[in-house]
Amino acid sequence: MSKFWSSIVSKLTPYIPGEQPKIDNLIKLNTNENPYGPSPLAVAAIEREINSSGASLRLYPNPDSEQLKLAIAKQHAQHGITPAHVFVGNGSDEVLAHAFQALLKHDDPILYPDITYSFYPVYCGLYHIAYKTIPLADDFTLRVDDYLNAGKNGGIIFPNPNAPTGCLLPLSEVERLVAAQPDSVVIVDEAYIDFGGKSAIPLVSRYPNLLIIQTMSKSYSLAGLRVGFAIGHPDLIAGLTRVKDSFNSYPLDRMAIAGATAAIEDKAYLDQTCQAVINSRDKLVAGMTALGFEVLPSAANFILARHPQHDAVKIAAGLRSDGILVRHFKDARINQFLRITIGTDAACQALLEALPRHLAGVN
Amino acid sequence: MSKFWSSIVSKLTPYIPGEQPKIDNLIKLNTNENPYGPSPLAVAAIEREINSSGASLRLYPNPDSEQLKLAIAKQHAQHGITPAHVFVGNGSDEVLAHAFQALLKHDDPILYPDITYSFYPVYCGLYHIAYKTIPLADDFTLRVDDYLNAGKNGGIIFPNPNAPTGCLLPLSEVERLVAAQPDSVVIVDEAYIDFGGKSAIPLVSRYPNLLIIQTMSKSYSLAGLRVGFAIGHPDLIAGLTRVKDSFNSYPLDRMAIAGATAAIEDKAYLDQTCQAVINSRDKLVAGMTALGFEVLPSAANFILARHPQHDAVKIAAGLRSDGILVRHFKDARINQFLRITIGTDAACQALLEALPRHLAGVN
Repeated sequence: MSKFWSSIVSKLTPYIPGEQPKIDNLIKLNTNENPYGPSPLAVAAIEREINSSGASLRLYPNPDSEQLKLAIAKQHAQHGITPAHVFVGNGSDEVLAHAFQALLKHDDPILYPDITYSFYPVYCGLYHIAYKTIPLADDFTLRVDDYLNAGKNGGIIFPNPNAPTGCLLPLSEVERLVAAQPDSVVIVDEAYIDFGGKSAIPLVSRYPNLLIIQTMSKSYSLAGLRVGFAIGHPDLIAGLTRVKDSFNSYPLDRMAIAGATAAIEDKAYLDQTCQAVINSRDKLVAGMTALGFEVLPSAANFILARHPQHDAVKIAAGLRSDGILVRHFKDARINQFLRITIGTDAACQALLEALPRHLAGVN
Repeated sequence: MSKFWSSIVSKLTPYIPGEQPKIDNLIKLNTNENPYGPSPLAVAAIEREINSSGASLRLYPNPDSEQLKLAIAKQHAQHGITPAHVFVGNGSDEVLAHAFQALLKHDDPILYPDITYSFYPVYCGLYHIAYKTIPLADDFTLRVDDYLNAGKNGGIIFPNPNAPTGCLLPLSEVERLVAAQPDSVVIVDEAYIDFGGKSAIPLVSRYPNLLIIQTMSKSYSLAGLRVGFAIGHPDLIAGLTRVKDSFNSYPLDRMAIAGATAAIEDKAYLDQTCQAVINSRDKLVAGMTALGFEVLPSAANFILARHPQHDAVKIAAGLRSDGILVRHFKDARINQFLRITIGTDAACQALLEALPRHLAGVN
């Protein structure tokens, strides 16, 4: 607390990201990073960008990341997506922040699930946005009717698949919600959609109130590059762009633009590595179920699981002593669960071999 | 305008950066980029970071850019600067944005010069911050007494050297202002300080209300990498960090952290290239003065100049037809001036050779 802080600062409860430890040789299953590296074409594009002794670095990047927007639009051209439907930012967190400020700040409270990405209430604090949380069902699925019956709202946002549950809302249910709320912006945060869900991007051309946000940190394995994007009606994109151009003209550096563009263009690599993660997930779920865990059905690159007889915090601490990191959340409804990122088959196997030791102790 | 926009969006007047044309072979003297590339050590560090087939890119960067903060603190350790005195962001524009929200939003209006970096009023619009502009003197210098006599304020910000004038406020005058305003945060935006000014960083340990902001886009020649930083009392840094952690956990990507750290450590290269720019500036000023231009005294990597007999817009258009870009601003007090970035000696010479043609025409 300082007398120099603006009044908002002391009221903030900042987001706390998963631990990024500096210890080597950890099995890091706590921040939903992709076990496979990014597309070799992305790495080559970055290397090309800094070539010729890095001279290009002296020049500002393209302020609108036009080349990247074009590549994203091309991937979805069959659904009527053009570069004017695309917004890009410094990670999907920046895109989300701008979306809260540009599109979700209205008189009525916005709606999002009680169990969801914990950055949403932080953005509401940062921009003074009123919100109401809508409880997930007992099985942690999202019920569209609860949103339709919640009264007037200033917008709706939810991840699909949801985080940290991993549960997917079928595309038909997404459409039912969007269609029934024509006066509200509905933001679908598809950070994990490539691991088994169906994107709502094909709906964009029919619903001017729908905004999709995706990240390149998960399925594209570029968490270290910081690129996220949004797809929606050009009017929504124009709102985001006005805020971005009032905040930072050049949010993506030259390497991020070059690497992300090449990664987007390498659809074959994306599909192949996502399928590998899905296959590993199937094996991990089977193995953990055999150990007595209840695992929520996941369409993401992580699972949320609990053991009916064993305390989640103790299991996590035991695994940590083995050099295996998983993530635990303190929210009441999920504090007996662990969120476990899908690693390589070897990492998942190491987890499955370590777990019985930590289940053998007291309850 | 869209019914889905938050009320703030339609009221925004976004910042317009200098043109980044896609035409090759232009002599680009319009966005204050450094004519020399960045330190070869910075380029090598980036190459190392993406080596081993870019596998590190799958992992999030360090959320606090600790290695970069340490390098910055080390450069100023003799003035008592520690990593707790340092904040880093995605270009100094992001650092400025957070500073406006975290430290300059109070009940009283903030103060800044009438002729200054045109992003300041944009931030005020974005965060609903009241402001009052203080006219520069007739010779475009900043008069500290005008700020001391302006009544209660919510903070003070100005670039030093000022942009787009290039005029430097002596360090003793900076200190007089900071010392006389112990209840206001004073932000000195030192984007261009390395081209001939004396930084106020040595004052930080004595004035808890002083924040210095610098960029790596100009003197470090890393505009394409997007890194800026702030140095101030740990309480001010903590306020910035609370806002940053409520906005985006990982604003700097892995290459930006690696490249910026190596650039900061290569002080010899910084000094050598800044001196080269200063030498070219001296020659350009002499050449333009000989052509009849009035050139404001500059401590930056650009000059602001006017010709008493020739219209600035016409000169700029003429130069553009020769493939030479310079920048023109429409503000009433400077609309007969051109802002010209210091390029290589060859680029400056090309400008000096082109100018007489465009002064030969009508007034």
